[in-house]
Amino acid sequence: MKSLGQNHIGYQVSGLGNHVFFGIDPKNNHPFETPFYQATAEEVDAALAKSKEAFEVYRLISIEKRVQFLKAISEKLKANKELLIQWFCAESGLPQDRAEVEFARSCFQFEYYAKAVETGYALEIKIDSADPDRKPNPKPSLTKLNIPVGPVVVFGASNFPFAYSTLGGDVASALAAGCPVIVKAHAMHPHTSSVSAQLILDVAKEQQLPDGILCHLLAEDFTVGQHLVQDPRVKAVGFTGSIGGGMALQKLINERKEPISLYAEMGSSNPIAVTKSALEKRASEIAKQISASVLLNAGQFCTSPGLLFIEETANFNNFKEELIQAFSQSELQCMLHPGISKRYFERVKEHAALVDVIYAGKHEGNFIQPTLAETNAAHFVNNPQIQEEIFGSYLTIVRCSDEAELRKCLDLLAGQLTTSLYAESEEDATRFLPVLTAKSGRIIFNGVPTGVEVSFAQQHGGPFPSSLNAYFTSVGWDAIKRFQRPVTFQNFSEDFSSKRVNFNENVSFLHFLNGKYQ
Amino acid sequence: MKSLGQNHIGYQVSGLGNHVFFGIDPKNNHPFETPFYQATAEEVDAALAKSKEAFEVYRLISIEKRVQFLKAISEKLKANKELLIQWFCAESGLPQDRAEVEFARSCFQFEYYAKAVETGYALEIKIDSADPDRKPNPKPSLTKLNIPVGPVVVFGASNFPFAYSTLGGDVASALAAGCPVIVKAHAMHPHTSSVSAQLILDVAKEQQLPDGILCHLLAEDFTVGQHLVQDPRVKAVGFTGSIGGGMALQKLINERKEPISLYAEMGSSNPIAVTKSALEKRASEIAKQISASVLLNAGQFCTSPGLLFIEETANFNNFKEELIQAFSQSELQCMLHPGISKRYFERVKEHAALVDVIYAGKHEGNFIQPTLAETNAAHFVNNPQIQEEIFGSYLTIVRCSDEAELRKCLDLLAGQLTTSLYAESEEDATRFLPVLTAKSGRIIFNGVPTGVEVSFAQQHGGPFPSSLNAYFTSVGWDAIKRFQRPVTFQNFSEDFSSKRVNFNENVSFLHFLNGKYQ
Repeated sequence: MKSLGQNHIGYQVSGLGNHVFFGIDPKNNHPFETPFYQATAEEVDAALAKSKEAFEVYRLISIEKRVQFLKAISEKLKANKELLIQWFCAESGLPQDRAEVEFARSCFQFEYYAKAVETGYALEIKIDSADPDRKPNPKPSLTKLNIPVGPVVVFGASNFPFAYSTLGGDVASALAAGCPVIVKAHAMHPHTSSVSAQLILDVAKEQQLPDGILCHLLAEDFTVGQHLVQDPRVKAVGFTGSIGGGMALQKLINERKEPISLYAEMGSSNPIAVTKSALEKRASEIAKQISASVLLNAGQFCTSPGLLFIEETANFNNFKEELIQAFSQSELQCMLHPGISKRYFERVKEHAALVDVIYAGKHEGNFIQPTLAETNAAHFVNNPQIQEEIFGSYLTIVRCSDEAELRKCLDLLAGQLTTSLYAESEEDATRFLPVLTAKSGRIIFNGVPTGVEVSFAQQHGGPFPSSLNAYFTSVGWDAIKRFQRPVTFQNFSEDFSSKRVNFNENVSFLHFLNGKYQ
Repeated sequence: MKSLGQNHIGYQVSGLGNHVFFGIDPKNNHPFETPFYQATAEEVDAALAKSKEAFEVYRLISIEKRVQFLKAISEKLKANKELLIQWFCAESGLPQDRAEVEFARSCFQFEYYAKAVETGYALEIKIDSADPDRKPNPKPSLTKLNIPVGPVVVFGASNFPFAYSTLGGDVASALAAGCPVIVKAHAMHPHTSSVSAQLILDVAKEQQLPDGILCHLLAEDFTVGQHLVQDPRVKAVGFTGSIGGGMALQKLINERKEPISLYAEMGSSNPIAVTKSALEKRASEIAKQISASVLLNAGQFCTSPGLLFIEETANFNNFKEELIQAFSQSELQCMLHPGISKRYFERVKEHAALVDVIYAGKHEGNFIQPTLAETNAAHFVNNPQIQEEIFGSYLTIVRCSDEAELRKCLDLLAGQLTTSLYAESEEDATRFLPVLTAKSGRIIFNGVPTGVEVSFAQQHGGPFPSSLNAYFTSVGWDAIKRFQRPVTFQNFSEDFSSKRVNFNENVSFLHFLNGKYQ
């Protein structure tokens, strides 16, 4: 691909700067050979200008064309699967099976968000019919629907080179909303990201969509990101990463004259609580499920479980032994890049001062095995920093002597993306719901947090610090709403309003009539 | 009412401070006799503590009880209408007929938001059914619904002593969401606000709702507000007022460790555009509608029109003459308080340096007549600050020589709550929609912006600086969503999830089934 190494300023490729960087094979820390040109201030500005211009065109094209674009992206990806997966594996160190799953998810997301637009769901169309006879004043007609906010900046995430980067949910949902996107590529998978951008741009060009509907900028330091989020032409930002990274972006955004929304999905330890009855009856099954979840792809998921609260039972030692067995027998897995493994080792070391390490995972280069630690409830209560996320496979068991202690621990949790509860179906699990709903955006019953279903009723986003705006989700149809705002048309005929968004007959409406919406 | 002058810390009244202030009759600038005790830091802290405690109870009560509470508030207000309206008129200088309309609206809002909860609309329940046979992995069941965020702070607005203060839409929608509220009363209608608070608290006590479900704090300076919005127990803030006021609050909120949403509805000039054909055919009708809108209650509405863009026609001078007639023949109207009239006179003076005043409204004390100014498009383009809001009756006509000039002016507008378009039904009014949707949250066809329907499909909130978060509305059912966040329950049986929120049979669901939501 000729454009490799270059920035994409819409349909134009550009590498004007002197600052180059290289992708790295995390399995041996060797750099790949293609130099990637960090975008200059001039290139960033050119991308912003094109994005703004593209918005003026893209926001007015028909819903059908938007849907067609999203569906065609999925087709284009499928036709280039081999190339994409090759770079995905080479740059991330993730195995082929994971690449396949994430690839399928990315294709599905474009199709799925297309459907949210096509069915009218994303438009959230609401209609109040006029009542000219109402006293004392006639009631006007109101039609409310969502329109796109403007150019969106998306930061690629290192742990999902497809599904949270250039081919990811933020890009797909922003394009579905009708917004052009400027991607700040993650420096640790520049090949994957650049190839992805080129493919989307090829589709855009084939469909004669405006130049600037997608821009793709390369950078290994923070300057490009800072420039982007502080520019008045940018109207929303999507970010998936650490709490530190998200808060630094928010601080930059706070300096803007016009406030905009930063949709940041940040850190989460995804605590799992297990009741006494559940542990007594299903210790082995639970150990298997939890260890598989912790082990998965070296734990490099925002939903990887890091904390396990249990009520001690007679079979607790057996349960622990099963976890240790699973952890120690697991193969060493490569982490995403040297920066991630370095940070992992630092966090593991910090954490060792707070807890008892009962199985210290082996490691070699960027390859790791999971580590298992334990502590008791009293110690956890006095050292709440134990709950802070360690990105990578690492589980801390918090032993509680009874349910009261367990609840005390849960009460101390910071906001989480997820919480999980293992309980027997005959016990009243609802007793835990007040605390679990207060602490998280998704609650899993008798299951693990990894595996985020891309679905209608999904909520991926929880109370601070797991997210910056817990009303919104970064997965599922509602993700599109982050990049829209509603407009109400008053006194326009329904026919007139309909033409405005080129509704087709498949579009669903919510219609308020006779005191009910339907 | 014994509690008059005191703060309400839940069911307890308290006036520990030394700082007292007095309500003022704006018709003669005479203070009323009851001293109002500004809340001390200790009292603010006590309110926050009670609010947090109340949340833990209120968030878990049944939907039915929440609905019952809201409906009973409306009944209680109706039973105390006379007392409320007496203070409303005495403190605001607004006439009886306006008080009646605003009172009816406030009662309606409590009933209407109750209905949004009762029907399930506000819960936004979404269900994905499980598919245990899906390959490669079974699909889990997901049930998504909204839960309350926590204690909410609402700042009373001076221009709606009922409908945007203690009895207002922010309070009603936060209570409907399941959140306790701390009201920072507006210092210019402390009697109205205190009586309102006492009535809501009477209902809460009758219904054995938790102490702290409502707190009502008095203050005439910014210290109480600052304390409130920076406290970690507060999870959302509602504000209606000036751009300066909203931005100052946002700055304080930016200093918090945990970011929270400030739902600020700020300044708007609510521009009206009139096409050449419309002015040629309906000059007199349009002049009547616009002057009535500008004149209404001395223009003290967030939706009062301040800018009129017209294409000059042969009958333009007649049109202008009609406006001057209406303005000059109007009675002097009392502004809300001396601070408002002072600011109005300052703004009128500043503005006079930018435009040609063609009718200078008379004034006397806090009483004013509307002022009419004009300028041309070229001057407007070079001096875009002409568009900045003047709170109170004041209209600036911007003469455009053709449609191109008119569109150039519209392109320069900052974000607005509303824009209005007068056009003939036979001309293609859609040509203005791209710019009007880009600039505002509500577009009115052949009508004026005043009169905000409290309705299902309403959008009251537009691009910055008219609002701080244009996704949300402060009027209509969607206003409730500002004080909620969604939680998804995974693997819970539908029966189980249903019990959780005590659904009744009238609750509507969105159910995703066979690729369609229904």
